[in-house]
Amino acid sequence: MKVSYAPNLYVALIHYPVINKNGETIASAVTNLDLHDIARLARTYGVPNFYVVTPLVDQKRLVEKVVSHWTTGYGATYNPARKKALELILVKKSLGEVKAHILEKTGRETRVVATSARSKPKNIDFGAFRKLLRSGKPYLLLLGTAWGLSDEVIAAADYTLEPVCGGTEYNHLSVRSAAAIILDRILTL
Amino acid sequence: MKVSYAPNLYVALIHYPVINKNGETIASAVTNLDLHDIARLARTYGVPNFYVVTPLVDQKRLVEKVVSHWTTGYGATYNPARKKALELILVKKSLGEVKAHILEKTGRETRVVATSARSKPKNIDFGAFRKLLRSGKPYLLLLGTAWGLSDEVIAAADYTLEPVCGGTEYNHLSVRSAAAIILDRILTL
Repeated sequence: MKVSYAPNLYVALIHYPVINKNGETIASAVTNLDLHDIARLARTYGVPNFYVVTPLVDQKRLVEKVVSHWTTGYGATYNPARKKALELILVKKSLGEVKAHILEKTGRETRVVATSARSKPKNIDFGAFRKLLRSGKPYLLLLGTAWGLSDEVIAAADYTLEPVCGGTEYNHLSVRSAAAIILDRILTL
Repeated sequence: MKVSYAPNLYVALIHYPVINKNGETIASAVTNLDLHDIARLARTYGVPNFYVVTPLVDQKRLVEKVVSHWTTGYGATYNPARKKALELILVKKSLGEVKAHILEKTGRETRVVATSARSKPKNIDFGAFRKLLRSGKPYLLLLGTAWGLSDEVIAAADYTLEPVCGGTEYNHLSVRSAAAIILDRILTL
């Protein structure tokens, strides 16, 4: 299985606005393993950048500290493979900042594809997303932490990707697992 | 995408014998998120049990404590979806104990499929593994922690599954990501 093109697909892990167990909008805390797992995944599938989105100053500093340890600190020498993954991470305050960065980098507006564990009105399936990517235009995949992306983020996205289904009724994957399955489904032949 | 059969596939996360960065055989420590992520994944894909293998008494107790919190303790009420996932976990001291449990449960010897980030002599590809599973016979997928399964485990397995490739040279996925991609590739239509 090989990727037939260098994907123009960016990934953003959203910590605000997301919802909690009760459906309220919150800013979630950053989970260290999310950074490592999704950065390694992005590197494996040739994703050019992995954005970590949080408006909280202390959380932004925390992510920068982790990234710095593995890219320029002791971690870079201890585990060069990890350096190659974590150097894809960019911390941004908002989705708007992410979109501005992609525009600056590629010269093109990015289309935004939200994800959810439930079907949404603007759903596209994995096959349709693969076709969209073939155009070479930039796409940004949004992953939600906590209980998922807030309704306003999903409503503002150009598309929502169909939920990952494993053939059972159970739809409670971790964001790390969902990210792995989604990238594999859309980026391998 | 739907699973066309109830898979007779079991998953075991091995903490001994695995190798460290220097290729030495070690017993690794259990990572809490491995338990949650892989249990949720197993539940999503209809895997009947998820074995956590460690010979260390304190680690075994730790896993049992985590599982008990989410299946019969406060966590079971707080998050019933998590209960449904973690109740698939069984802690075993060795691979031998896992095989004995599957024999007792199904009345049949299980075939063992090891995983590795590198190609191995007895490699089968994802398509071949899917076909083997269609027979309905029990199969056990081994996942390694730390720097991967020891050579003796791989040599003793019936097969080794081809490595997950994302179209780049980079082959350093977390065991959580690899598990997600592998189950999705072999269990969805």
